[in-house]
Amino acid sequence: MWTGSIIAVDWGTTNRRAYRLSPYGICEDEFEDDKGITSVERGGFPVAVAEIRARLGDLPLLMAGMIGSNRGWVEAPYVPCPAGADALAARLVMVDGQRAAIVPGLSYLAPGRSDVMRGEEVQLFGAVAKGLVPPTCLVCHPGTHNKWATVEDGRILSFRTVMTGELFNLLREKSILSDWLHEPVAIGPAFLDGARRGLEGEALTAELFSVRAGVLLGQRSKDEAASFTSGLLIGADIRTGLHGEDEKEIVVMGRPELTSLYAAVLGELGRTAREIDGERAFIAGILQIKGQIA
Amino acid sequence: MWTGSIIAVDWGTTNRRAYRLSPYGICEDEFEDDKGITSVERGGFPVAVAEIRARLGDLPLLMAGMIGSNRGWVEAPYVPCPAGADALAARLVMVDGQRAAIVPGLSYLAPGRSDVMRGEEVQLFGAVAKGLVPPTCLVCHPGTHNKWATVEDGRILSFRTVMTGELFNLLREKSILSDWLHEPVAIGPAFLDGARRGLEGEALTAELFSVRAGVLLGQRSKDEAASFTSGLLIGADIRTGLHGEDEKEIVVMGRPELTSLYAAVLGELGRTAREIDGERAFIAGILQIKGQIA
Repeated sequence: MWTGSIIAVDWGTTNRRAYRLSPYGICEDEFEDDKGITSVERGGFPVAVAEIRARLGDLPLLMAGMIGSNRGWVEAPYVPCPAGADALAARLVMVDGQRAAIVPGLSYLAPGRSDVMRGEEVQLFGAVAKGLVPPTCLVCHPGTHNKWATVEDGRILSFRTVMTGELFNLLREKSILSDWLHEPVAIGPAFLDGARRGLEGEALTAELFSVRAGVLLGQRSKDEAASFTSGLLIGADIRTGLHGEDEKEIVVMGRPELTSLYAAVLGELGRTAREIDGERAFIAGILQIKGQIA
Repeated sequence: MWTGSIIAVDWGTTNRRAYRLSPYGICEDEFEDDKGITSVERGGFPVAVAEIRARLGDLPLLMAGMIGSNRGWVEAPYVPCPAGADALAARLVMVDGQRAAIVPGLSYLAPGRSDVMRGEEVQLFGAVAKGLVPPTCLVCHPGTHNKWATVEDGRILSFRTVMTGELFNLLREKSILSDWLHEPVAIGPAFLDGARRGLEGEALTAELFSVRAGVLLGQRSKDEAASFTSGLLIGADIRTGLHGEDEKEIVVMGRPELTSLYAAVLGELGRTAREIDGERAFIAGILQIKGQIA
């Protein structure tokens, strides 16, 4: 059944993307909508899946992301690190009378550290399989919850999540800064000034208030507030992610509008970052897992 | 006019507290409601003030807090630090045909630093005037925007704002942690563990996500999430506030349910913190300013 065409779904919290893939791995059709898992009612996943098949064809589904979480369709227990794509393929959770499979996420546990990911691991293993990234590297995967993954010989050894995207969104939606954070973020002096402070380890919760104070006291323009704040959070994020990793090649994977911001700050540090489009890597990852289904 | 009874108002963003004070400084009546400045329509302050007088008496008003901000009634420009209570009294902004006065806030500017406060300065000078705190000390004023003020000879030399309360509220209202942050915060192992990490300078945005991962992986109980998160933010806050201040006496001023949390973490560091009820200090501060009106 898994040798013919399939539908691959990257099903997140607020969005989903679905792709019809030919037996040769060609993406023949696709769509994205806002039916993330939180917009699907309890018991509503069979209908939500039927919608996908109605648009892309009556095919087997291989799904990854939050669809396998405790808020998703069926929970797919985390696979502990270190892990490679083979470990994910071996632990698929079958649903819908075996016509759909959910790829599990990864967990990482160490003394005083707990972490989880769902979805990024597929992109990461896909990029390795495609040769888009070297088998040993440090991967930064910006998004709502940025992931820094240490990859060795194509396996994820450990990873750490930084809540950068979610914090920026919270600040934009409802904080004392919210009026000013709807401007587009530009890579310029304000962004790089914020990034420098974040990299230096300036206290994040104090620097955030200084954005407001700086505007009130005429030290900073309102128009730069979004760029400064984004730079500050990304700088602090990179400080966390690079911790002790001074030599490895760095890959930044995800949506191009985000990877370019991270690459700019890494460039200021003299680190070259390879940027990879996450969508392409996701398809490669799904195809790799598909090829390993027994 | 300012020698008889007055009404003192601490008018914040979301709440206001008003007190009728006798010529001898006795608080004879008071109330608190949720008519903060953001709930008053443009042009609505005369009516909002008339309500206060209808409840407490037709008296002169001395007001402090966000009422003097650019979203308030009339903007009272910030007085730059260093400043004492005399500087506030000299820069009152009269409104309502001289029958009401707004106390200005303070600003602090230094290379790369901008900061503002409105309201806390009245409490602080009041506490100094009453002898509740020593004239030279480090004051921590927890709230939506915690203020750390360096006080020397009864004047505020400099201060720094940390957005701890606002960040906790944002996380509780709308983040991936929100379901778990409605439990009461207790001073116990989870709170102190969070505080230790915050004090050690662990990356805040990574530790916040670890709260979620820790619960998902069974390393932490949901019930402790609020206490751990509060401890983490307060620990990071105190790390920022104590920066370079190893000797000064520390005073924590504000609402008792908050000052006790800060005092507990300071206690773990071997620092004794004097706790001061902010409401009592506010009345003392208003009386001191009243006494200096020419």
